[in-house]
Amino acid sequence: MEILKSNERIDYMYSDHLKVIQRKDAFSFSLDTLLLAYFAKEKIHDRDKVVDLCCGNGAATLYMSYFNLAHYDAVEIQPEIASQAERSVNLNQLENRIAVHCINALDAPKKLGKDKFDVVTVNPPYFKVPEGHVINPNQQKAIARHEILINLEQVIKVASQLLKMKGKLFIVHRPERLAEIIHYCLNNHMGVKNIQPFAPQKDHETNLVVVEAVNNAPTDGLVLNNPIIVHNSDSSFTDEIENIIHENKAASTKTENKNIIFIA
Amino acid sequence: MEILKSNERIDYMYSDHLKVIQRKDAFSFSLDTLLLAYFAKEKIHDRDKVVDLCCGNGAATLYMSYFNLAHYDAVEIQPEIASQAERSVNLNQLENRIAVHCINALDAPKKLGKDKFDVVTVNPPYFKVPEGHVINPNQQKAIARHEILINLEQVIKVASQLLKMKGKLFIVHRPERLAEIIHYCLNNHMGVKNIQPFAPQKDHETNLVVVEAVNNAPTDGLVLNNPIIVHNSDSSFTDEIENIIHENKAASTKTENKNIIFIA
Repeated sequence: MEILKSNERIDYMYSDHLKVIQRKDAFSFSLDTLLLAYFAKEKIHDRDKVVDLCCGNGAATLYMSYFNLAHYDAVEIQPEIASQAERSVNLNQLENRIAVHCINALDAPKKLGKDKFDVVTVNPPYFKVPEGHVINPNQQKAIARHEILINLEQVIKVASQLLKMKGKLFIVHRPERLAEIIHYCLNNHMGVKNIQPFAPQKDHETNLVVVEAVNNAPTDGLVLNNPIIVHNSDSSFTDEIENIIHENKAASTKTENKNIIFIA
Repeated sequence: MEILKSNERIDYMYSDHLKVIQRKDAFSFSLDTLLLAYFAKEKIHDRDKVVDLCCGNGAATLYMSYFNLAHYDAVEIQPEIASQAERSVNLNQLENRIAVHCINALDAPKKLGKDKFDVVTVNPPYFKVPEGHVINPNQQKAIARHEILINLEQVIKVASQLLKMKGKLFIVHRPERLAEIIHYCLNNHMGVKNIQPFAPQKDHETNLVVVEAVNNAPTDGLVLNNPIIVHNSDSSFTDEIENIIHENKAASTKTENKNIIFIA
């Protein structure tokens, strides 16, 4: 298999030992993905089975796999992007621990099995399809960003089906959709245990949340954390975020990240 | 009607012109109540109709009434406490604008009318009744603090019945119950619009939230605010909280508050 197509590049992620294939012009992994992966990997153990839904080019899966020996199933519906994920897995020699599946996340419980996973992670499409608007279904970005092929309610239902009793869902999303995330979790017998907000700068409003829910858990007991600030006033990353992005902060340089598009 | 019983005292609240009757030994209004009232009054207009459920001694109602000419129905099931609320209303000569009802909040829609209120406020019992535990139903504090006579799901259902289209609910609660608040709001066709967290000190975890929900509103569009810090490191109130507690911060002295029990 050809490792790199003409419109692709290889970026380093977190460590000099972790490579990720991305398109040159578009669809790089985002800071959102790293934040999701960071908080999920804190709860992933070596023998766990993990599903990363809507995995894109596999950045979250690759990141999480760096910290443990768990087995990962990464699900992405778009063939070109799933192919990037698969080739990145090969590039990092992680074939034994990461399986990439080019399927609709809606089919994941049927294809991968129900009630058998310890952790599900998902960075789903953030935006509702505006009523009356037609979005080109062939556009990679539109499918990744808008709820064209799957919506939030379906994502959470699928996660609850995949997870074993007390299995954990980690989802990253905009706070605008937080009420729905919580509502759909409780509708699917998942307790919402933790909300981690992120604010772009000090005294700015939260624009991102990572939510942890637990399958078959009580409805109470939520912890609402204080926001983590992403940028300093000079727009550099705060130390807390730098530690999530770079294994060895001191050794890193800004130029290493020049191709990474950070949405948050 | 006798103004003050032997076990009661008169406290000042917010202004030197606003008096509230409380028991000497127990059951004072809390900071939670003032925070609820403060955020609700920001959205109350002169011609609005407001219901304050589980109103206790009427502190939130009295506070809100100080800022506008709206009409208030204050609902409290416990006769002794409802009597305090009623006598406080008389003491402040607010009989024309505040009606106190000694009824179960569950009966409020039937007694006060459905789909007719602009705003509902509630500082409900915070704690579930532990399974297997017997709580003395005659204890004032137990009824105010534990879900003995009404639970969270019922409170939110009642609020949605009272509110007119686009009417607003303001509820104060512990973050542990935030997921349930959101879930019950969405179950009752209320959109959750705003969450205001409070942390006892800088870098401490949120231990209180004021939630604003809107009747018959979309499920998305939530704003998650940054926490407001309640205490400085010397345990005095921060300026932001002082401005909520005292009309004229400069003129106030600590001794004025000596009888107020602040839970948060």
